[in-house]
Amino acid sequence: MEFREAMTKPGMLYGVGLGPGDPELLTLKAHRLISKARVIAYPAPDDGESFARAIAAEFIPENALEIPIVVPMRVERFPAKSVYDKAAEDIAHVLREGEDVVTLCEGDPFFYGSFMYLFERLGGRFPCEIVPGVTSLTACASRLQRPLTSRNDVLTVIPGPLPDDEIRRRIEDAQAIAIMKVGRHLSRLKSLLADMGLLSHAGYVERATLPSENVVPLARLEVDAAPYFSMILIYKGDEAWMLPPQFSS
Amino acid sequence: MEFREAMTKPGMLYGVGLGPGDPELLTLKAHRLISKARVIAYPAPDDGESFARAIAAEFIPENALEIPIVVPMRVERFPAKSVYDKAAEDIAHVLREGEDVVTLCEGDPFFYGSFMYLFERLGGRFPCEIVPGVTSLTACASRLQRPLTSRNDVLTVIPGPLPDDEIRRRIEDAQAIAIMKVGRHLSRLKSLLADMGLLSHAGYVERATLPSENVVPLARLEVDAAPYFSMILIYKGDEAWMLPPQFSS
Repeated sequence: MEFREAMTKPGMLYGVGLGPGDPELLTLKAHRLISKARVIAYPAPDDGESFARAIAAEFIPENALEIPIVVPMRVERFPAKSVYDKAAEDIAHVLREGEDVVTLCEGDPFFYGSFMYLFERLGGRFPCEIVPGVTSLTACASRLQRPLTSRNDVLTVIPGPLPDDEIRRRIEDAQAIAIMKVGRHLSRLKSLLADMGLLSHAGYVERATLPSENVVPLARLEVDAAPYFSMILIYKGDEAWMLPPQFSS
Repeated sequence: MEFREAMTKPGMLYGVGLGPGDPELLTLKAHRLISKARVIAYPAPDDGESFARAIAAEFIPENALEIPIVVPMRVERFPAKSVYDKAAEDIAHVLREGEDVVTLCEGDPFFYGSFMYLFERLGGRFPCEIVPGVTSLTACASRLQRPLTSRNDVLTVIPGPLPDDEIRRRIEDAQAIAIMKVGRHLSRLKSLLADMGLLSHAGYVERATLPSENVVPLARLEVDAAPYFSMILIYKGDEAWMLPPQFSS
């Protein structure tokens, strides 16, 4: 495999999944790569702490060079093109010098992650390895203590910002449903599910596996807005799984 | 929380995800629980080695009590009710004595896993903790070096045994598609995707992250049958992602 820009042997771009938030849900491989990293990149807000860095903080070597990718926070978090252009060039500079760059990714790098904006820009130019991580999808199912899919279920993962009629149609057509990026769409989604008669089949999880996590049947949730890291899981199948055991008393 | 059968404090039933196959993709938490386990259960075929046990083998304490759950192999691997009834009672016996039982699960316990057959039987009776794992879904995307989902993509996960017309309809309706359990359905699925003009958008992965793994564009795969642990990923979006960088020369 040849890399157009390589003068000396280029460094490896690692996209490393960190899992949903509990540092113990890092993989052994993520732990090894981060513990030995000389250069670490991660997404960061322009105001406050980087969630990705916080998950891995205890494993980051003190003398590592850190490249925060500062993305201005907007409601839907759409990528700022110029930010990723600039970050990609900063990282390319390090890779061209033969240094590996370990990029920290919340959850899994290729599951609704921002790493793909770097990968689009660098994936064809430098050697790259993606280390998969535990997704919020199965982390939320584990915290609800309710299986996500079994046997020949069809699973549909739906972003919350999509319009009501599309979400309704997709829920009607699947056995197992996850609605991601609930955030400010919470009220609307809750009304929609109530209208569909599915409120009692829905579980809600925010900040899965973090100390601040909240895990409840959606019907019992009494707020109107959710954080960005929140999810609704709907299981239409077996009635025994409608309400997780810890809530059925 | 009360547990009906508990005389003394019962043990904890752990459902521990092991990830797709590479032992380094265990989480730190899975590693900790397995390394300290006194009782370990896992699914096993009636002929040959347990894949779950093989993934975790190097971490299992020598003196741990092992409870293999021997499920006769059938084409579609549907659960044998009596096997799980018996295994659940064996495990319940240990839990009632106050011992924890660490159950090893390929991938993630709640993502198309057989652990749910134990959970159905024991989840309401004993305290239970599910430790999520890296799924084959994102492991396959990482090995194909192609993002699974981005922005507001809808992801649909389809079991390969479903009929052609249903699979076709679901593929037409999603942006990102994973077909699980390809196995003996490979030829049929390949014909279907060719007919839909999507063969060049499809990647194929078998035994992801294992030494025997095979990662190829589906169009270049020249066999008619696949192992049970195989997957097809289809990305209909951005043309730049149609063929993973390592195959586009």
